[in-house]
Amino acid sequence: MSPSSRMGVLSERECARLLQTQRIGRIALVVDGKPEIFPVNYAFDEGVVVFRTSSGLKLERGPYTPAAFEVDHFDPNEGVAWSVVVHGTAQDISSSLDSLSEKLRKLAVTPSAPGSRRHWMAVYADRLTGRRFSIR
Amino acid sequence: MSPSSRMGVLSERECARLLQTQRIGRIALVVDGKPEIFPVNYAFDEGVVVFRTSSGLKLERGPYTPAAFEVDHFDPNEGVAWSVVVHGTAQDISSSLDSLSEKLRKLAVTPSAPGSRRHWMAVYADRLTGRRFSIR
Repeated sequence: MSPSSRMGVLSERECARLLQTQRIGRIALVVDGKPEIFPVNYAFDEGVVVFRTSSGLKLERGPYTPAAFEVDHFDPNEGVAWSVVVHGTAQDISSSLDSLSEKLRKLAVTPSAPGSRRHWMAVYADRLTGRRFSIR
Repeated sequence: MSPSSRMGVLSERECARLLQTQRIGRIALVVDGKPEIFPVNYAFDEGVVVFRTSSGLKLERGPYTPAAFEVDHFDPNEGVAWSVVVHGTAQDISSSLDSLSEKLRKLAVTPSAPGSRRHWMAVYADRLTGRRFSIR
């Protein structure tokens, strides 16, 4: 792959692949008309971002609302950076009985921050967008 | 500083100090009632987050709207992570004549992504919140 071919807009497939290479992203929600943003440990599978949370803003206001989730990675040695954004709908899947929710709750998602984080939230992707660019 | 005293909620002063240690953060805005999130190179001074942008969503929808800006840092060697969130109002300061805007436009903000990025956006902080926690 030549350097130039590595730059530019990423395909949905490439976005999905890159989402599986990282563990920490940021979820953005709208609360009372204002943006909120939280770093979370996450997993991505089957077109769904999954993270765990304790009770709080993400749980009370997140379900069934539009969400954006962002992951980026900067490699100063390679001189390359990428970012991927997932647009979708947030849902609380803590007790959902469907097979996808059951599968998602088995993913390895270990929150960095202290606390019980016993609730599972999912962002079902409508759209994956991303780009890769040089940082040299 | 003992390990335990390094954990927990950060003071506004500590948040401001940490904001000056990083170069890349993420800005969240509300566009048509939905959250949008963008990684940006930024600087922080005088209680203001500053970044550059080309014409586009951030410029068209950002000014005079509520914004959230997030920075985090994970140090696996130290076993410590922190995140800081700035809540405030986004403004286009590309041609503002006040002395603060003039000072902010002199800050070193070098966008990683390609493009001219000739517009300057500022998020005037209403609130700084942050926490530090163990990731071991």
